[in-house]
Amino acid sequence: MSDFGPHRALLTDLYQLTMAAGYFEAGKSSDRATFEMYVRRLPPQRNFVLAAGLAQAVDYLLNLRFTSEEVDYVRSLPQFRNASPAFFDMLAVFRFTGDLFAVPEGTPLFPGEPFLTVRAPVIEAQLPETYLLATVGFQSLIATKAARLAKAAGGRSVVDFGTRRAHSPEAGVLGARAAYIGGCIGTSNTETGFRYGVPVFGTAAHSWVMSFVSEREAFAELQKLLGEQTVYLVDTYETLEGTRQAAALGHPLWGVRLDSGNLEQLSFQVRKILDDAGLHEAKIFATGDLNEHKIHELLAARAPIDSFGVGTDLITSSDAPSIGMIYKMVEIESDGEHRYTTKRSEDKQTLPGGKQIFRFPDHDVLGLATECVSCANAEVTALQRPVILKGRLIEPLPTATQARERASAALAKLPAACQSLFEAKEPWRVELSEQLTHLDQQVRHEAAS
Amino acid sequence: MSDFGPHRALLTDLYQLTMAAGYFEAGKSSDRATFEMYVRRLPPQRNFVLAAGLAQAVDYLLNLRFTSEEVDYVRSLPQFRNASPAFFDMLAVFRFTGDLFAVPEGTPLFPGEPFLTVRAPVIEAQLPETYLLATVGFQSLIATKAARLAKAAGGRSVVDFGTRRAHSPEAGVLGARAAYIGGCIGTSNTETGFRYGVPVFGTAAHSWVMSFVSEREAFAELQKLLGEQTVYLVDTYETLEGTRQAAALGHPLWGVRLDSGNLEQLSFQVRKILDDAGLHEAKIFATGDLNEHKIHELLAARAPIDSFGVGTDLITSSDAPSIGMIYKMVEIESDGEHRYTTKRSEDKQTLPGGKQIFRFPDHDVLGLATECVSCANAEVTALQRPVILKGRLIEPLPTATQARERASAALAKLPAACQSLFEAKEPWRVELSEQLTHLDQQVRHEAAS
Repeated sequence: MSDFGPHRALLTDLYQLTMAAGYFEAGKSSDRATFEMYVRRLPPQRNFVLAAGLAQAVDYLLNLRFTSEEVDYVRSLPQFRNASPAFFDMLAVFRFTGDLFAVPEGTPLFPGEPFLTVRAPVIEAQLPETYLLATVGFQSLIATKAARLAKAAGGRSVVDFGTRRAHSPEAGVLGARAAYIGGCIGTSNTETGFRYGVPVFGTAAHSWVMSFVSEREAFAELQKLLGEQTVYLVDTYETLEGTRQAAALGHPLWGVRLDSGNLEQLSFQVRKILDDAGLHEAKIFATGDLNEHKIHELLAARAPIDSFGVGTDLITSSDAPSIGMIYKMVEIESDGEHRYTTKRSEDKQTLPGGKQIFRFPDHDVLGLATECVSCANAEVTALQRPVILKGRLIEPLPTATQARERASAALAKLPAACQSLFEAKEPWRVELSEQLTHLDQQVRHEAAS
Repeated sequence: MSDFGPHRALLTDLYQLTMAAGYFEAGKSSDRATFEMYVRRLPPQRNFVLAAGLAQAVDYLLNLRFTSEEVDYVRSLPQFRNASPAFFDMLAVFRFTGDLFAVPEGTPLFPGEPFLTVRAPVIEAQLPETYLLATVGFQSLIATKAARLAKAAGGRSVVDFGTRRAHSPEAGVLGARAAYIGGCIGTSNTETGFRYGVPVFGTAAHSWVMSFVSEREAFAELQKLLGEQTVYLVDTYETLEGTRQAAALGHPLWGVRLDSGNLEQLSFQVRKILDDAGLHEAKIFATGDLNEHKIHELLAARAPIDSFGVGTDLITSSDAPSIGMIYKMVEIESDGEHRYTTKRSEDKQTLPGGKQIFRFPDHDVLGLATECVSCANAEVTALQRPVILKGRLIEPLPTATQARERASAALAKLPAACQSLFEAKEPWRVELSEQLTHLDQQVRHEAAS
């Protein structure tokens, strides 16, 4: 199941390893900690964050181990000069033996609501922080962006074309997966299709046209290969002339792609050329620096465009290229003594205790994992579920396609204001349960005394 | 040398594969193409782009091959229904046998100047486009951002702390490498240290402090482990009280880290507490949503901060999260006939012919790869060099550290305006050679006739 084999144990911030050594040397290896991952606030113009990336988080936890070369590297660092030989022996046999609770991929979440909760011996819970944040944070960012694009396209298809602009090739693969979960119909990234069963799309680039002496010959050869999947890229030299060349070839074809110029104006002109040639079923696919606002504008102008390819803006979530996902300790059990933990740094306070999210039809209640909010209410769902127990996956995870279906159903249930492309005046309501409120006050009171 | 083994052949846009099939079926497999990678324009507020990522591009080209499962997957796609069995046989033995020319990592470049040039049979030159753009584009983006941060810090250290906010864990690894090349002194990403020999930094997080009953105990245990590398994170509860706790422990220590609140004001107060305790050598490290402008402001206010850790803003290049890197065919040789190629789409024109960059002390000349601009002038450097010839690496590539040294020396030679954090009124001048200008006119003239 692992994508890249075991070589990811060092893919973490060094301080996770120095803390691991510190916990070990301080005799805290058997302390059990609970960490939660969530966003403090929503990215700008977003009214939810769509959870994605759990499958990769699980793959990581289940396969986390150090090779002997990796242990040797840690040993060589000056920060570990005072660590005992037993610490490195521990790394050599390190496994994740704890529990993971999480919301399924495709679930919209709101500030303070845990995407996942890790309960494990403190070293095992601490070490994965960096990887978990990067994989769940990034995929959730892109799934959220894709949901905006799908919303703007109002039922027309959006395809991810972003890999070349992704933050590394692997970001392209994972971002394409997340884009599909968020609402794209597929991606140009072939590896994402191969690994995750996501539908893949693509026909030809400008270089294809340029490699032939004439555009006509390039188009004819493409048609021979792709038949009714043929999409002619018509703007290498001049869009309308390119469209006429394509139209002259007649059936079979899927349609044409516009990639530059004034897409609104061109789409009407291109539609007319196709219709005049009797190619009424031929579709128009538009690409070229698109985003949710441009798509919205094109559709508002009734531009006859059937589907959209989005690259840069989707794969980098360029209007909001990061998400403030954090991973915070909320409980610890040390020498038989249990403590709820909080951070009280300015503007960065955290709520103590492992939590559960109770989703009502029109709001959420954030409560303690151990309490039951409205147990008897069939309209209420507890969103966090056990995923890994004692280091073992308890059941197969949903596929990307299943996560996409969940997202689509869940987003459709949100009020219109939350689905808007702009910041909702009435955001989704997240209340704290009485027990959680009480615990928070109690922990603050104890700290102050 | 390969980081992830051979499983990257599908990490490309599907259209590269459909075009490969098309070239194959159209009898163009032995056509030789030349592609160049460059940026059309600079990202906002940038006056150069620092080239990085070549080592990963080379690793990819040298190890590019399809497993039988990957070939089977391609065969299963509807787009390949009309492809002949011989095409899939070709994929099964596919290797990159062409030439790669490139500027060394750490070279500042300007619009139109090729980061790299691929000359190869057309299928071999086409297929790598997506991966090459993503790996060179991303690392160049981050190296450029790091150069801005290093410039703002004016000689004080900047460390990359971004992995948790990277666009996937692997983006964290490669971004940290690029940040180092661009001017950071190192990274928190341990894998980047392990793979690329980049210095790694890190001590402890808030969870370390929270896992102990008292801050004092947490600090004492950390000091035991890290000795003079100890950095106390002092803001888990209250920064000044945290600093007093740290100061009370005295030597050994490196210093303290501030991660929240008003860094300017706190740095003066913290410096006083440390000095009053006789800890004059103890350093102050600041982190928490920093960027080049905030660092500039802190230094302008003479805040006594010795080094900076930058996360989100660096690893996502958040003010400019993408770079418009493109990969365009500039020549093709088909059936013994050689052609220069250009694209004439609106606003997306390209210049024909494989090129060389001639760097003069105060400007560049972009010429043809076959011409000699100022050959006898010892002050002029031709920046593109052969890297792979006939599928083989001709000499070991520079290390990340060597690339960092090259960047530092090259940036220091740029005029002050180009090193500014804002758009230069007088950008670096890039002229076209007479031969290139003439060729461009000739190709346009032929196309128009």
